[in-house]
Amino acid sequence: MTIGDELLLGFTVDTNAAHLARELAEIGVAIVRRSTVGDSASDIAKAVREALDRSDGVITTGGLGPTSDDMTKPSIAELFGREMVRDEAILQSLHERWARMRRKGPIPESNFAQAMIPEGAVIIPNGHGSAPGIWLEDERGRWVAMLPGVPREMRAMVSEQLIPRLSSRMSADGEQVAGNGPPPVIMSRTLRTTGIAESALADLLGDLGRSIDGMSPAFLPAVEGVDVRLTSRDLPKAEAIARLDRAFVKLREAIGRYVYAEGSTDLASVVLDLCRVAGIRIAVAESCTGGLLGARITAIPGSSDVFVGGVVAYDNSVKTEMLGVTRETLETSGAVSEPVAVAMARGVRARLSADVGISITGIAGPDGGTEEKPVGTVWIALDGKLSAVLGVRLFGDRSEIRARSAQAALDLLRRQLQSG
Amino acid sequence: MTIGDELLLGFTVDTNAAHLARELAEIGVAIVRRSTVGDSASDIAKAVREALDRSDGVITTGGLGPTSDDMTKPSIAELFGREMVRDEAILQSLHERWARMRRKGPIPESNFAQAMIPEGAVIIPNGHGSAPGIWLEDERGRWVAMLPGVPREMRAMVSEQLIPRLSSRMSADGEQVAGNGPPPVIMSRTLRTTGIAESALADLLGDLGRSIDGMSPAFLPAVEGVDVRLTSRDLPKAEAIARLDRAFVKLREAIGRYVYAEGSTDLASVVLDLCRVAGIRIAVAESCTGGLLGARITAIPGSSDVFVGGVVAYDNSVKTEMLGVTRETLETSGAVSEPVAVAMARGVRARLSADVGISITGIAGPDGGTEEKPVGTVWIALDGKLSAVLGVRLFGDRSEIRARSAQAALDLLRRQLQSG
Repeated sequence: MTIGDELLLGFTVDTNAAHLARELAEIGVAIVRRSTVGDSASDIAKAVREALDRSDGVITTGGLGPTSDDMTKPSIAELFGREMVRDEAILQSLHERWARMRRKGPIPESNFAQAMIPEGAVIIPNGHGSAPGIWLEDERGRWVAMLPGVPREMRAMVSEQLIPRLSSRMSADGEQVAGNGPPPVIMSRTLRTTGIAESALADLLGDLGRSIDGMSPAFLPAVEGVDVRLTSRDLPKAEAIARLDRAFVKLREAIGRYVYAEGSTDLASVVLDLCRVAGIRIAVAESCTGGLLGARITAIPGSSDVFVGGVVAYDNSVKTEMLGVTRETLETSGAVSEPVAVAMARGVRARLSADVGISITGIAGPDGGTEEKPVGTVWIALDGKLSAVLGVRLFGDRSEIRARSAQAALDLLRRQLQSG
Repeated sequence: MTIGDELLLGFTVDTNAAHLARELAEIGVAIVRRSTVGDSASDIAKAVREALDRSDGVITTGGLGPTSDDMTKPSIAELFGREMVRDEAILQSLHERWARMRRKGPIPESNFAQAMIPEGAVIIPNGHGSAPGIWLEDERGRWVAMLPGVPREMRAMVSEQLIPRLSSRMSADGEQVAGNGPPPVIMSRTLRTTGIAESALADLLGDLGRSIDGMSPAFLPAVEGVDVRLTSRDLPKAEAIARLDRAFVKLREAIGRYVYAEGSTDLASVVLDLCRVAGIRIAVAESCTGGLLGARITAIPGSSDVFVGGVVAYDNSVKTEMLGVTRETLETSGAVSEPVAVAMARGVRARLSADVGISITGIAGPDGGTEEKPVGTVWIALDGKLSAVLGVRLFGDRSEIRARSAQAALDLLRRQLQSG
């Protein structure tokens, strides 16, 4: 449960919840619900009570600071029927922290609120900030872990304190149940595809699209393509890994050439590695993408041994003067055409002394489309040691068409490199 | 309520919830709770039932797509005691969409699930995707609005369909309550600054940094600069606007030349407008940013009347052969230096026949830094009708240093255009 008016009102995007979920999944903790409430004592207490009714424990972030809108501790203390008491150890560390930071004057009165904790609570030390976390447990073993909302502080406390505590608790629970093996974990793996729509991918997979070895694939469409994720929820770690390995062999076989990577690897990084192996240096000539393809490639550290550079030929004068595209070709075929794409790729390859030139010319919109060449019409060409040309009709708004164009150019290069 | 295993498990950061909250706050809708549940029919139904117990309506996003893990419609239909029926209008628009996209072959069977809706539901059209939204209301007037999870589709439907529907519903409710004035709204406005750190900005603002006309400024640091946001929570719309107007005059005066825009306007858009007024056409020469500056500029529709093009001079050979930087300058001063930045700006301006050339050369890291020129060292130059040079030391990782370099180059150009 994340707490704060700024989250509820949408002024801050909640990244704590996703971080916590990923960390907990790794040790096999299943999350059944995630909630956000504002800085209201009654709303916090009500939400925590409801959450404890459907789970063994609740983790909160936020509302532990020194300001008056920080209500987490007192409201949960009341829910558990505990008094708030002053903790001398926290008070001591507040004084030490104040001295270490060489602040002038006395500690502001508001900071002393941080030394008040619910009776019987356990302190979760905070190595990166002044507000400690709190662990509170009732006689039935149900618990609430209260962590600060500042992401850096929260993250360190989760990995250093909360995960070890929950892990040892779970293995203790496990030992009480006779004959229990290692606990089940939630583990997932992602296969990245591009050049195929979500629905076409589902059709291609057929029955595998509904279930693979008892797991349902999740299809995650984004501008770069569709990721397919498999999640194992009910097996211990070693068996989950083996099941995911088996399922991935089937998935890869069914999806074939549309697969470009696993996990979160960027296509640009895949292409750079393939170029490095093939000993190929590349240069780009971009029109509608305006530098986006070069930016994607150079975002990867170490790209300089493969990427020579490029020309952003936005105005037609740049296509003629810097890339050698003839005025005749531009006039006969138009700037967005197969002959111009091919001439741009050839020109940038030759002038920048690269092994392969890659070009993109297209209509990103919102204006500039015609009946014959609507918005989304894009031509991509490779020239040199590898050569290919691709005409596509991409959908989406300006930014999506540009991003899809850069991705399609990288993917054309990937396929040529893999088939060569 | 946002729906999806990928959100609950933390594989995707939930940005829909924040967007919805901000849009709803603008029309005075108070959000009491936000939740996330996984792709489980029973979890969705349970969470929606609980949410309807504490509010007048629930908005869901996600789980409307064609794949088998999309459970939102059937689970909420069951909660409302409605059958699922086939909607002929959706079926028709599916066929039209398929024809418009010129896809080959029949529509995949999986897509027909999108034409099934709960009996008595109202369709919320989706202009940007195939899954329509659903409005379902019970006999007591409690409602659920189901929207797709794809942010682009959801956002368009919220502004075009949901907000007008809720606004007219609220004004109808308002008329039934005698003697009520206009309701208070939550309204906020943002001033965008760049080139100054958060703490320096707070110092510059002094007392205004704590309170302006009863509102506390929120400082939102990001890679482009620090946004300053003021929020009015307790006044009706007209008075809130007047208070924000007054406060913004004071803010702008105190912050001065660091302010480049209001709201969410991009600096590239500000610069393009200034160039247009001054009749100046620009070209870029990029080294460490690899095309990012060109991509930023061309992301703005209509940039072609100002932006001629550019050269991505990643390898030093491109700096000499395409931009006329001499080998001697490169050897004497190094690629990341004031003389090379100036020569790059001059070269790109001359060769692309622009009025102003803008160059960036720097060390983005993680490798390549030295004692004398550490990672983050960046030189930026303007040459032509405007001329300037700037050496900076930027912080952050590779992607932050590159983004900050492009922003700093745009801001150098803005300041020259505004002072000229």
